[in-house]
Amino acid sequence: MSKIHEALAPISWLEGRWSTTDGRGYYPNIPDFTYHEDLEFLCIGQPMYNFLSTSRHPEKQTPMHQERGFLRIKPGTNELSFVVSHNFGLTSLEEGLCETETHQVILETVNLSRISFAKPPFVKKIKRVFKLLSDDQLEATLYMETDTTPMSEHLKAVYKKIQ
Amino acid sequence: MSKIHEALAPISWLEGRWSTTDGRGYYPNIPDFTYHEDLEFLCIGQPMYNFLSTSRHPEKQTPMHQERGFLRIKPGTNELSFVVSHNFGLTSLEEGLCETETHQVILETVNLSRISFAKPPFVKKIKRVFKLLSDDQLEATLYMETDTTPMSEHLKAVYKKIQ
Repeated sequence: MSKIHEALAPISWLEGRWSTTDGRGYYPNIPDFTYHEDLEFLCIGQPMYNFLSTSRHPEKQTPMHQERGFLRIKPGTNELSFVVSHNFGLTSLEEGLCETETHQVILETVNLSRISFAKPPFVKKIKRVFKLLSDDQLEATLYMETDTTPMSEHLKAVYKKIQ
Repeated sequence: MSKIHEALAPISWLEGRWSTTDGRGYYPNIPDFTYHEDLEFLCIGQPMYNFLSTSRHPEKQTPMHQERGFLRIKPGTNELSFVVSHNFGLTSLEEGLCETETHQVILETVNLSRISFAKPPFVKKIKRVFKLLSDDQLEATLYMETDTTPMSEHLKAVYKKIQ
């Protein structure tokens, strides 16, 4: 376990490496699918988490969606900012809050920027919720709006903490 | 060395892990400084590089600036897009091109988005150039414009390829 900066105390429960025990995806007009995902929220001494996500096809193990970024907290508050790069060619700036009692992190996009040669449909908004289910069990839910689909639940996954 | 996706052929020379032999920073109204930086451009089978940068104080070894993202190429062209998250609370979408004969990558921001509790001065534009000096030697130059300073050279570093 990395040494966590004191600013991260309200979200100290998020620290570590997490791996899906169950990852499911669904969205209007695409077939349901399952996936394997590894998450990292690691602190190297700065007042933030370094974030990595790599998802893979559950049988073929080929890489699928990836995200890389940083999760910051405004010191002395429960306000969060998440700067994320997505491998399909998107930057997302997400802001939100952490709920200490329920151990939840709730984030919504305030800015999205897409590379010039990205493929449609275009993502317009993302909302995500991380919820601690038990000391070593995390749940993530991701909602997405595109230019052709209103905000809809897209991903739901449960992770186990791994060392 | 990771297996490089064929789409990355025009920038195959960027692949690998690189570590500074010399890193220098300067900017109007701040003292000159030196830094150590580790860069990664790695391919895990997708048509893009996974990118990480971690810089450290050259003596104290404490972490300084960090970046995480993805460098993509529009297949069949020399057009590049770089989606980057910066640890101080910035997303940058940078676009540009690679020059095959001179082994250069030139990128400029087309979108920047800053977290609500970022500290001034605010970065308004970034331009960077990666240039291969020899098979195992890379040079990077970064120019930056802020709300108080016009576009000025800010960082110049030389890296050696490490395995």
